[in-house]
Amino acid sequence: MIGKLNHVAIAVPDIADASSTYKNILGAEVSGQIEQPEHGVKIVFIKLPNTKIELISPLNDNSPIRKFLEKNPKGGIHHLCYEVECINLAIQKLSENNYKILEPGIPKIGAHGKPIIFLHPSNFNGTLIELQQK
Amino acid sequence: MIGKLNHVAIAVPDIADASSTYKNILGAEVSGQIEQPEHGVKIVFIKLPNTKIELISPLNDNSPIRKFLEKNPKGGIHHLCYEVECINLAIQKLSENNYKILEPGIPKIGAHGKPIIFLHPSNFNGTLIELQQK
Repeated sequence: MIGKLNHVAIAVPDIADASSTYKNILGAEVSGQIEQPEHGVKIVFIKLPNTKIELISPLNDNSPIRKFLEKNPKGGIHHLCYEVECINLAIQKLSENNYKILEPGIPKIGAHGKPIIFLHPSNFNGTLIELQQK
Repeated sequence: MIGKLNHVAIAVPDIADASSTYKNILGAEVSGQIEQPEHGVKIVFIKLPNTKIELISPLNDNSPIRKFLEKNPKGGIHHLCYEVECINLAIQKLSENNYKILEPGIPKIGAHGKPIIFLHPSNFNGTLIELQQK
């Protein structure tokens, strides 16, 4: 079912500082800061030859990652995103096996303009998993 | 400096269960369990088209991931491994900029038979980073 690792998302308290570390110390290719008000985050993309890292930081008080950063003030890996061919087939397979899909339980359009769902960390060794249709 | 994401390591309390979830629910290609006594871990490799996930579980009481699992009993993402062309040039760059390399501060031979170092999470947004020479 799962294909490529689309990205690793790292929540960071200071996105300019984190971006600078990846650019100047680790020598990676980084994008500018991209604001996504509909998702409540600022993102910097770190382009690697085979996948990408997304640095994410809250854009406002309602940001879905604010609580994560309260628990992890220095930041931390927030989720892994795997690609799937068809999000609805993925949901069917997960539901048949009683695996939890996070609210609202149906696909929404993610930061890349494609249908996504999130799976509950308790079913996947404490890791939050995003599935994104290719 | 950094090239490909070589792997994402996920520490898991029950490697057979975690492997089964990736194989049977997420439909991924998984290896058998590989014991690495010199590193104190059992590993299952999950082969994705562009990178790999490593499920790691303690092999004995001295395992370096036992403490992580005490803090995170359900498991969690343990580290990211990036490839570099030359581990010694990487160390030089990091040291010049006062970035911490974990003990012993010099490369050791990692689970893939290549020189590796680990970087302190406090310098990298709470993420433990492994650098592995290509």
